[in-house]
Amino acid sequence: MTEICLPVIIVNFKTYLESTGKRAVELAKQAQKVSRETGYYVGVAPQLADLRAVAEAVDIPVFAQHIDPIKPGGFTGHVLAEAAQEAGAVGTLINHSERQLKLSDIDEIVKMTREKGLMSIVCANNPTISAAVASLKPDMVAIEPPELIGTGIPVSKAQPEIVTGTVELVRRVNEKVVILCGAGISHGADVSAALKLGTQGVLVASGIVKAKDPYAIMREFAEAMK
Amino acid sequence: MTEICLPVIIVNFKTYLESTGKRAVELAKQAQKVSRETGYYVGVAPQLADLRAVAEAVDIPVFAQHIDPIKPGGFTGHVLAEAAQEAGAVGTLINHSERQLKLSDIDEIVKMTREKGLMSIVCANNPTISAAVASLKPDMVAIEPPELIGTGIPVSKAQPEIVTGTVELVRRVNEKVVILCGAGISHGADVSAALKLGTQGVLVASGIVKAKDPYAIMREFAEAMK
Amino acid sequence: MTEICLPVIIVNFKTYLESTGKRAVELAKQAQKVSRETGYYVGVAPQLADLRAVAEAVDIPVFAQHIDPIKPGGFTGHVLAEAAQEAGAVGTLINHSERQLKLSDIDEIVKMTREKGLMSIVCANNPTISAAVASLKPDMVAIEPPELIGTGIPVSKAQPEIVTGTVELVRRVNEKVVILCGAGISHGADVSAALKLGTQGVLVASGIVKAKDPYAIMREFAEAMK
Amino acid sequence: MTEICLPVIIVNFKTYLESTGKRAVELAKQAQKVSRETGYYVGVAPQLADLRAVAEAVDIPVFAQHIDPIKPGGFTGHVLAEAAQEAGAVGTLINHSERQLKLSDIDEIVKMTREKGLMSIVCANNPTISAAVASLKPDMVAIEPPELIGTGIPVSKAQPEIVTGTVELVRRVNEKVVILCGAGISHGADVSAALKLGTQGVLVASGIVKAKDPYAIMREFAEAMK
Repeated sequence: MTEICLPVIIVNFKTYLESTGKRAVELAKQAQKVSRETGYYVGVAPQLADLRAVAEAVDIPVFAQHIDPIKPGGFTGHVLAEAAQEAGAVGTLINHSERQLKLSDIDEIVKMTREKGLMSIVCANNPTISAAVASLKPDMVAIEPPELIGTGIPVSKAQPEIVTGTVELVRRVNEKVVILCGAGISHGADVSAALKLGTQGVLVASGIVKAKDPYAIMREFAEAMK
Repeated sequence: MTEICLPVIIVNFKTYLESTGKRAVELAKQAQKVSRETGYYVGVAPQLADLRAVAEAVDIPVFAQHIDPIKPGGFTGHVLAEAAQEAGAVGTLINHSERQLKLSDIDEIVKMTREKGLMSIVCANNPTISAAVASLKPDMVAIEPPELIGTGIPVSKAQPEIVTGTVELVRRVNEKVVILCGAGISHGADVSAALKLGTQGVLVASGIVKAKDPYAIMREFAEAMK
Repeated sequence: MTEICLPVIIVNFKTYLESTGKRAVELAKQAQKVSRETGYYVGVAPQLADLRAVAEAVDIPVFAQHIDPIKPGGFTGHVLAEAAQEAGAVGTLINHSERQLKLSDIDEIVKMTREKGLMSIVCANNPTISAAVASLKPDMVAIEPPELIGTGIPVSKAQPEIVTGTVELVRRVNEKVVILCGAGISHGADVSAALKLGTQGVLVASGIVKAKDPYAIMREFAEAMK
Repeated sequence: MTEICLPVIIVNFKTYLESTGKRAVELAKQAQKVSRETGYYVGVAPQLADLRAVAEAVDIPVFAQHIDPIKPGGFTGHVLAEAAQEAGAVGTLINHSERQLKLSDIDEIVKMTREKGLMSIVCANNPTISAAVASLKPDMVAIEPPELIGTGIPVSKAQPEIVTGTVELVRRVNEKVVILCGAGISHGADVSAALKLGTQGVLVASGIVKAKDPYAIMREFAEAMK
């Protein structure tokens, strides 16, 4: 597994047109520029169809947005970990609130990533669920209250108790897991607030993907981590 | 939409290791070789992570194995039609028995493909379901009895009445749709039997992907279509 | 199968508190009163937990809201057709827009109901899907545009072309199936409009369940069918 | 919430014909007989269609096999907690391996049961998942390795380390939750073994439902708890 250097910024490209195809490659290059200029860990999670092109274009960590709990075989239309890995993924998001999974599938995918040397970032809706997924021993847990996703209202400001509550409950069951927070993060101040509340980084999407100048915002985020 | 030239062979790469990554590109090149040598329409359906690399390497039609009924936006981990299309897909499989969908989603995806100039191949388990999906006016219907998939027992031989029944029921509601059959197709004789029963081609997977010499089998299939 | 006497009114109790438990039994008795007074076929579809109590209290047809495509065995938390039938159901709704199913499951459930002498009412979102499900030969097809459900804007008035389009497409593939329409039906005039457009009845929910006087509305509906 | 008196036996009726309709009521009466004769807590989980008839016939605790994470409203074909409760349920199974749920739905259902005074029994496949669900603070956690369900090979004998591992991991995060084990339990010795391994009871199905003399087996189970 690629070493994680804290704190981290992970940019989820989702399925926005602004981060599809050529524009996915372009956005990843900007993320790489910020990473090189500031020295911070900036990872990107493009769509599966863009994974290889992005991974070939940049040296920063590239994540899949989802993989399925399957082994090689007859699973038409599913996402095979080996395919994502060969295309260049160093890890994957799991259980994003827009792609929620059965608990036993989360467990199985986390185990698969561990066996294959892939990084696992399991998303959770609230502090209790964050603690539950932390028991599965993924590499990272990302708390994202779904009601704030895409709103521009930062969780670290609107509901700091969700972030501190998550940190507290997660640490009781797992001392090592990296804790990220997301939803509504759109300014550097949101990022520094998130770190002060005890997280080790942010998982962001529209705040960067939909920004007029994504490079500027990523740069602002990285500066805020100092 | 790329013009369909009948009869057709569509090779579903599924999620076999033999058709993942570099081996997906290699297999697609062999399919292209058969197509060029025989003049027949040979399409391939690699995994999404391999779609772009395959589409860049060959000139034959490349299909996605699945797309989701979504528009651009916040749909982490889903398959956006625009992303598959920009990566080089000319169409998509829909509702494969290993990736079955709600009826309303099948309908929506077929409509989306029509709007975007993508070809739609809707899979069905039995004659009645084939007729139902034919009502949705996709470009192709593929009948594949799930109990024969991957067995090497060809539907065209083991259950010819399923094939003729499908052709009969489908034609009552849709005169134009291209009818394919699949499941257990592993010899040229299975292909010619399928065409004699009234289909316009085959959808095959393990019979080719898992063969010792996929090129030889694809060539045999193409010869059998004469 | 209980004989269907056209035209019909089917009241879907959904999971409203106004139609749960004792209030489900009470509402079913009012439906029976309307049926006896007017001679029209009025069926009710209570929640599964209320099915037996409702079926014991009234003589009108009682439907399940959903059954699963399973045989007796180890299927914890699923709905077994035999259990619904023994509790008193004479049929079931299938694929309601609030409980949508994979196409192959719709097909399997319709076959199961046929074998067991249960009536099948398959719901559909639009004319094309209505035609698709009509190919599966259920006893009834109910067209309900989801965007109008619960709005009080009657489909028969707001989008009469959806109703006539459904009747036209369905009749091409199935001459016998009973066609119902639903969504927004709240006045007698909506019911008579639906019949004039070529349907044989209505599937209604909030228009009756949430009414101040459900008996009065059901009575108005029945009168409008004359 | 009805007080839990440890240790407990919960009989899951699943969707076996032997425990459907009248036979569900009969089986529940036998469970009540064992409870009265031995003084042990014996609960039953019949199908939803049988819930009311069973709850009216016996005084022992009756559980639903599943409820949905919904509030009263337009949710055709779903299971409303209020409906199960009014029909007589004192609690519900959640996330049985035959009815697995998204993690966020498990969390939501556990919260719903707490608000309504219903008991929650969350099922889990392995020790890690058991610890994860224990974080959600349900009343009971039931560990059932799916590969042993219905085999007659008791988990307490075949894989005692799964049971002890579960007890250990669960207790680290939750000291109060009642821990049950299940899968393959068919003799009294399996039950006493389960208790010795640190559980507070068993969740059983086919071992009792499919037995020639369910009363005798339930009695044997209860005797083994002394």
